[in-house]
Amino acid sequence: MKPIVAVNFKAYYPHSFGEKALKLAESAKRVWEETNVKIILAPPYTEIRGIAKYLEGSEVEVYAQHADPIEPGAQTGFIPLEGIRDAGAVGVILNHSEHRLKLADIGWLIKRAKKLGLKTLVCADEPETTAAAAALNPDIVAVEPPELIGTGIPVSKAKPEVITSTVDLVRKISKELTILTGAGISAGEDVYIAIKLGTQGVLVASAIVKAKDPYQVMKDMALKALEAWEK
Amino acid sequence: MKPIVAVNFKAYYPHSFGEKALKLAESAKRVWEETNVKIILAPPYTEIRGIAKYLEGSEVEVYAQHADPIEPGAQTGFIPLEGIRDAGAVGVILNHSEHRLKLADIGWLIKRAKKLGLKTLVCADEPETTAAAAALNPDIVAVEPPELIGTGIPVSKAKPEVITSTVDLVRKISKELTILTGAGISAGEDVYIAIKLGTQGVLVASAIVKAKDPYQVMKDMALKALEAWEK
Amino acid sequence: MKPIVAVNFKAYYPHSFGEKALKLAESAKRVWEETNVKIILAPPYTEIRGIAKYLEGSEVEVYAQHADPIEPGAQTGFIPLEGIRDAGAVGVILNHSEHRLKLADIGWLIKRAKKLGLKTLVCADEPETTAAAAALNPDIVAVEPPELIGTGIPVSKAKPEVITSTVDLVRKISKELTILTGAGISAGEDVYIAIKLGTQGVLVASAIVKAKDPYQVMKDMALKALEAWEK
Amino acid sequence: MKPIVAVNFKAYYPHSFGEKALKLAESAKRVWEETNVKIILAPPYTEIRGIAKYLEGSEVEVYAQHADPIEPGAQTGFIPLEGIRDAGAVGVILNHSEHRLKLADIGWLIKRAKKLGLKTLVCADEPETTAAAAALNPDIVAVEPPELIGTGIPVSKAKPEVITSTVDLVRKISKELTILTGAGISAGEDVYIAIKLGTQGVLVASAIVKAKDPYQVMKDMALKALEAWEK
Repeated sequence: MKPIVAVNFKAYYPHSFGEKALKLAESAKRVWEETNVKIILAPPYTEIRGIAKYLEGSEVEVYAQHADPIEPGAQTGFIPLEGIRDAGAVGVILNHSEHRLKLADIGWLIKRAKKLGLKTLVCADEPETTAAAAALNPDIVAVEPPELIGTGIPVSKAKPEVITSTVDLVRKISKELTILTGAGISAGEDVYIAIKLGTQGVLVASAIVKAKDPYQVMKDMALKALEAWEK
Repeated sequence: MKPIVAVNFKAYYPHSFGEKALKLAESAKRVWEETNVKIILAPPYTEIRGIAKYLEGSEVEVYAQHADPIEPGAQTGFIPLEGIRDAGAVGVILNHSEHRLKLADIGWLIKRAKKLGLKTLVCADEPETTAAAAALNPDIVAVEPPELIGTGIPVSKAKPEVITSTVDLVRKISKELTILTGAGISAGEDVYIAIKLGTQGVLVASAIVKAKDPYQVMKDMALKALEAWEK
Repeated sequence: MKPIVAVNFKAYYPHSFGEKALKLAESAKRVWEETNVKIILAPPYTEIRGIAKYLEGSEVEVYAQHADPIEPGAQTGFIPLEGIRDAGAVGVILNHSEHRLKLADIGWLIKRAKKLGLKTLVCADEPETTAAAAALNPDIVAVEPPELIGTGIPVSKAKPEVITSTVDLVRKISKELTILTGAGISAGEDVYIAIKLGTQGVLVASAIVKAKDPYQVMKDMALKALEAWEK
Repeated sequence: MKPIVAVNFKAYYPHSFGEKALKLAESAKRVWEETNVKIILAPPYTEIRGIAKYLEGSEVEVYAQHADPIEPGAQTGFIPLEGIRDAGAVGVILNHSEHRLKLADIGWLIKRAKKLGLKTLVCADEPETTAAAAALNPDIVAVEPPELIGTGIPVSKAKPEVITSTVDLVRKISKELTILTGAGISAGEDVYIAIKLGTQGVLVASAIVKAKDPYQVMKDMALKALEAWEK
């Protein structure tokens, strides 16, 4: 097992699209080559195919940012899990605080993703809802207090008890489930604390995507993750 | 503790409204007086006040059918939990298969209902999602495979393993949480089996609400519930 | 034809519920008796039946605050139009800025309400969307710039051109359709201007519902409405 | 002006994705080269960039299937209009019957698309709602009775009066707005009738996307469109 830095590209413009998005993928690949930390990238739907193609041969993983609870067919403006996989993603984020899902739909999507060989990363806002997500058997859960998202105030400093409570509650349901810390993660130090508090890594967005030098931020986070991991 | 017959009035017309709704409340009161089984009634918003007033002094409980995740204030066409309580309800059904909620909203509503002294009954469609609901600490969960709702094919006969798996998964999370069986419950016998499979009672709708003689069906269910309960 | 003061109770607590809601109805009845201005009250679902009963024999009209696009039947936590009518309402507000509806659903609801003998008041945010609403043949449209709702800054002063453009666009589609002005209406003077700008009256909420003396505010608005109307 | 064949790829699997999607674009390009009919393709988000790149230099236009009413920024799993344009689309379908939008959001999206230089094609289900859409000033409207979508029963035969009423109502609001006929369009003959009834062309999906030979169906439709157009 390795520490994880998961990067949600969100929909910043122009940062999350086209050339800029590809550039983020290049940085991620370089950081992976240099540190061997596990990196997950979640670009917008429009960029999945290009980025997945670029990353072929590397271990950097591409996830979709969201999935709707639909099957392929007469569906307009929705991408079914089959389409996400066809575009080259190996997983999908579900229930991000900016795109909440119904409980029943999260359950359905996790089961269906499993059948299709796609991994699932389920976000939640509190210890209890993260435990609820854990009860649905996803591959990864991420706890993200929504009031800290995008603030630059890391949950690992502002509300460490949210993380430790989450770890406690989730561990009662699953011993093995991967847990990530999200919301306000800005620097390597935040990643270090997140791992020390008992999670396997972080879910980050603006701190990397909108950085002047995304490579540097990602590299710093990866190195601190390793440092925390090895101690 | 007593067995439970919970009756979702839904929105049948004219059955669930006005005189007819009041008549259902009268039948429920009579069955409670005669059997002492715990009866929960969930009428439409428009009928809560009248029915709650009629039932004052009895132990028949009135729940709202749904709540939206809103606070009182500048909200149009939504009833906040405070309004539900003001009208005389003592609890609320959340996440019925005909009105699914987002995971985060179920979590928020349960916490807020608790603060306001309202009970919560959370529906879910499968063992895993019911376990997830249990992780949010409601007062009652009900497992209802949606494909059986309204069919008259009782889940207790068609899919008993859904109930037993649910009981197993929920009991890992909470020893005490009340569990109900829903979907297709049509007669006293279905209630009997539901209790024998390890749940405390049933969530019923059309079999009572659209019955020629709702009193008879409710009475039959209550008696069979007692029979199963006492053995 | 008479000028209109429509009062959206919203979901203020305790103002919009129970005794307080009934008190608002009493004030409305008194103002109607004294001025003969047309008054529409839109209480929460839980209060419709009680208020409609109280107002029997008066010309004050009760509307629901919202309707969902559903037929009676196996529906949980939604009130079909039949239920709204059964509770005593004679109309329904659709597409309030706090409860927006899909275009197709507004169309469906207007047609169905017409069949059931219910009136419809459709809110919209701008001249173009109000014209679009007019194309669906409701009984009343109300233009309410959402950024002014609840501010106490009346649209009739802050953005009179929104009202006049709306009147222009709507009149191209219908010569007769009743048009109301909403958002920020606080006092009789705002009602006066709203009518002078070519609409038939106002849609108000907090200025009346949360007033120390709702009767006085309503009376003031009704008198100014008459004054503007007669000139 | 030229007749239009607009092709909604929907989310058929594998038809609407990857190689198959590109193949559809090749066929469209060939039909355009051979007939000069205006062709609009609406692939899933994941295919927009690849297909738009392939079609560079042709006049075949790429539209997104849907847009959500969001601005770029901290948005997860939504593609803002800026991202749609960045991927190479020149327009967007709004309010398809499989992805309905709120009235206010359609208004907002049309205004914003206009600012960004993107065209809008708004679907609606009936004459009145199509007229309402027209009042919002999009570039194209398409009337599609949902009950015929995907049936192979062309609206142009089954309900020609829906089309003619739509044309009548829309023309009262705009003399110039492009109107398309959708739902059940299966063959060139249906396109011929659609144009004869007063619309500029068709919105098609399964009849082309799931055809054994999409090129042949598209070519047939384009030729019949020209035939109807020139008479």
